[in-house]
Amino acid sequence: MRVVDLNSDLGESFGAYTIGMDSAVLRHISSANVACGWHAGDPEVMERTVRAAVASGTAVGAHPGYPDLLGFGRRNMALSPNEARTAVMYQVGALQAFLRAQGLPLQHVKPHGALYNTAAKDMKLALAICEGIQAVAPDAIILGLAGSCLLSAAQQTGLRWASEVFADRAYLSDGSLVPRSQPGAVITNPDCAIRRAVRMVRDGVVTTVDGIDIPILAHSICVHGDIPEAVAFVEAIHAALVAEGIKVGKLDEVIA
Amino acid sequence: MRVVDLNSDLGESFGAYTIGMDSAVLRHISSANVACGWHAGDPEVMERTVRAAVASGTAVGAHPGYPDLLGFGRRNMALSPNEARTAVMYQVGALQAFLRAQGLPLQHVKPHGALYNTAAKDMKLALAICEGIQAVAPDAIILGLAGSCLLSAAQQTGLRWASEVFADRAYLSDGSLVPRSQPGAVITNPDCAIRRAVRMVRDGVVTTVDGIDIPILAHSICVHGDIPEAVAFVEAIHAALVAEGIKVGKLDEVIA
Amino acid sequence: MRVVDLNSDLGESFGAYTIGMDSAVLRHISSANVACGWHAGDPEVMERTVRAAVASGTAVGAHPGYPDLLGFGRRNMALSPNEARTAVMYQVGALQAFLRAQGLPLQHVKPHGALYNTAAKDMKLALAICEGIQAVAPDAIILGLAGSCLLSAAQQTGLRWASEVFADRAYLSDGSLVPRSQPGAVITNPDCAIRRAVRMVRDGVVTTVDGIDIPILAHSICVHGDIPEAVAFVEAIHAALVAEGIKVGKLDEVIA
Amino acid sequence: MRVVDLNSDLGESFGAYTIGMDSAVLRHISSANVACGWHAGDPEVMERTVRAAVASGTAVGAHPGYPDLLGFGRRNMALSPNEARTAVMYQVGALQAFLRAQGLPLQHVKPHGALYNTAAKDMKLALAICEGIQAVAPDAIILGLAGSCLLSAAQQTGLRWASEVFADRAYLSDGSLVPRSQPGAVITNPDCAIRRAVRMVRDGVVTTVDGIDIPILAHSICVHGDIPEAVAFVEAIHAALVAEGIKVGKLDEVIA
Repeated sequence: MRVVDLNSDLGESFGAYTIGMDSAVLRHISSANVACGWHAGDPEVMERTVRAAVASGTAVGAHPGYPDLLGFGRRNMALSPNEARTAVMYQVGALQAFLRAQGLPLQHVKPHGALYNTAAKDMKLALAICEGIQAVAPDAIILGLAGSCLLSAAQQTGLRWASEVFADRAYLSDGSLVPRSQPGAVITNPDCAIRRAVRMVRDGVVTTVDGIDIPILAHSICVHGDIPEAVAFVEAIHAALVAEGIKVGKLDEVIA
Repeated sequence: MRVVDLNSDLGESFGAYTIGMDSAVLRHISSANVACGWHAGDPEVMERTVRAAVASGTAVGAHPGYPDLLGFGRRNMALSPNEARTAVMYQVGALQAFLRAQGLPLQHVKPHGALYNTAAKDMKLALAICEGIQAVAPDAIILGLAGSCLLSAAQQTGLRWASEVFADRAYLSDGSLVPRSQPGAVITNPDCAIRRAVRMVRDGVVTTVDGIDIPILAHSICVHGDIPEAVAFVEAIHAALVAEGIKVGKLDEVIA
Repeated sequence: MRVVDLNSDLGESFGAYTIGMDSAVLRHISSANVACGWHAGDPEVMERTVRAAVASGTAVGAHPGYPDLLGFGRRNMALSPNEARTAVMYQVGALQAFLRAQGLPLQHVKPHGALYNTAAKDMKLALAICEGIQAVAPDAIILGLAGSCLLSAAQQTGLRWASEVFADRAYLSDGSLVPRSQPGAVITNPDCAIRRAVRMVRDGVVTTVDGIDIPILAHSICVHGDIPEAVAFVEAIHAALVAEGIKVGKLDEVIA
Repeated sequence: MRVVDLNSDLGESFGAYTIGMDSAVLRHISSANVACGWHAGDPEVMERTVRAAVASGTAVGAHPGYPDLLGFGRRNMALSPNEARTAVMYQVGALQAFLRAQGLPLQHVKPHGALYNTAAKDMKLALAICEGIQAVAPDAIILGLAGSCLLSAAQQTGLRWASEVFADRAYLSDGSLVPRSQPGAVITNPDCAIRRAVRMVRDGVVTTVDGIDIPILAHSICVHGDIPEAVAFVEAIHAALVAEGIKVGKLDEVIA
């Protein structure tokens, strides 16, 4: 039986500020990427999120980002490889503390925002991130964009890795995402997005903006939980996958 | 044979900013309190400091502080017990990552600055800190002011603890430190400070500002490494202790 | 004709984080306290808020707070008078830049959260804040709690000041607010709150928790805009004041 | 008589952290670029630095940078033009407050580090910065790299501008600096650096790494004050300029 993971960014609230409908989305996903306090999240939020994940049986991963709360980690920053490596060690270590307190293992690490996007194309940064993870969490799975440098770096470093796809994003023929600045980058029709997701998981292909089919490896599908429509979509895609005979399971099970 | 620990705050540099003569002081101390990035320190500094401690055979502890880089953690902040508990978990976890990467255990936790001072007198805060440590590092030793609430809280929580004394500070007859704002708070004569330290370790007493002797438990002596005179003092106190037949050893050995 | 000001904290969003229904509440208030980037707010939010205030004809004041985004400025911090004085200068100066760009004068300064509460009772802090404002905005009105040290300090410094009351808070017989930690601190019945506000403005008295009437000076009423119920209350109190023959006008007009 | 400005970055200390020999370098320069609290500096440091500049008769400019204290503003950050524009408004406004308190005008604005370097080549960013300055300090002089986009943007925005040269940096034949990552980027021989500086000011030419002379406009020479050797160099270059009949004067006088 085919298995696919549904992952979502959680624990992005900060102090008095709330982002995300975490408890609603937790019901439908199998893996949660928990912010580690640099681009979002704080210690109380991290603990609350880890506890909620435990309660719902969801696996937890670290979601480290750039030190840029103001930019929510979405602005690129020119960190040296050593700065990136140690920044990842610091953030992963902080989250591991909250997991240890709950007796939960760290399942995976998924870099956030600009760190994720740059690590998809920059091998030096990707290797630095993987070396940091190797040093502090050698059993963790690296979750990165399908076909990205980050996954090559994980392979090279000897880490387990999982390939992530986006149901609601258009793909270029080289397997990269159409930049958000371009028209058609986001697939707004939920049914269309779900059909694409099912096809990626079941058939291992996606149709690019050029109209051709390319192979794609879909270990995990990224979903969002920031607005009610997003949560409804998560529920719908979960149901559609099950209806197609695809099981939604944790990363650990997908890449076992 | 009597054993006493010498501890010092290390790894307090931040980005382009340097504080402390870490490599010089490392030669003479047995335990290093490493800043965790909130009141001082950053990931690269943390890794560098842990590596230097490994190279010099010095034990490492976490030195968590208030989220106040501008005030260097020296300004009191009204954190709730839950905020303090999770703040300690976060910072200890981040340091543990760098220790794990070097295969080094976390020996102890010593709160920094205003967090240390307030936890010496505020049982709720002290308990919150200890609960945080219990959750993420149950084997760590709590290093706190002799006779403080923090040590009572550690005892109550079931954590190991060690009692810290200050060679260069005057004591009140209740065992607390003379506040720095008062004249005579700091003992500026190095020979006098050394004599007091030796007496605290060997005889378990200290003469207070009122001229009376009170019992004091000296597992560890706090020393500084910010200026050349401070480093010279560390070397001198180390030599004086050895000359008195007192061994300078890690906390683990002192409270074994 | 009696005039009273309605003031509210605005511009408390930060980066990707949104707090407050600013555009809704702006329609009903006469003075906006704009966060200055330390406890809340960022440069883009500050500009947007100032522009919205200009568009709605609302007067603008600076709303400086402690350097504690994580605690939203609500946690007390032991700043020295000089740290507080210069912190206020910095934040007021930053907001003045955005006002200058719109050709708008700075009407007032109201400290935020824990800085407001501590300055109500701590004369040293209150004087430090007023000296900071005197240095950078000598024409600004200090908006502080009725009967507070902050207003005495403003008087002593030679600054104009205005006395603020809370419609939804219970008062002790010494004129201070019942702490939020105590039962009955917040008046949850909107009609009751409105009656109390009207009475404070029209008659200059408020009934304390002890059941006695004390004199109170009501230049401005603090209202909130964080949730729909709060905005509805602002509209209701505005209407009730007008119905009582009380004009809602800017601070400048109230204390002219 | 020829006049040239000597400028240096000052006020880069932060809290307990000290960087720069500000009082030593202040004796020899005519214009100080004062950090504004984002990449370096804090309110107390800003006030102290402005007061020291007033005492030594040195003109003061704002030195805004990226929101990156950990990276000291030296790491590139992908701010949108609007983020950059408002970030500059905020920081310039904060410094203006401290100048206003001393009755001193803001002479100039010089972006710091990565913001300076990127604004030299990126016209959108350069224009955003100039629009921010135009909005809050229309009389300020923009101090930027000779031949840079930032100076073109200032010209286009209608702001006064001044062209900065580096005595200790090698130039490419297109007038840009040899990147620090390349060998020979920094001219380490003080006599050579001084000869080059004198020639740039007196003759308006500099010899590039290709061995050809290119025209260069030298309104101001950037000098450093972080280490004793740097301060000695500032004294030496000042003396050499005077010996060549060149006056060291403020930017205001140079571009009058």
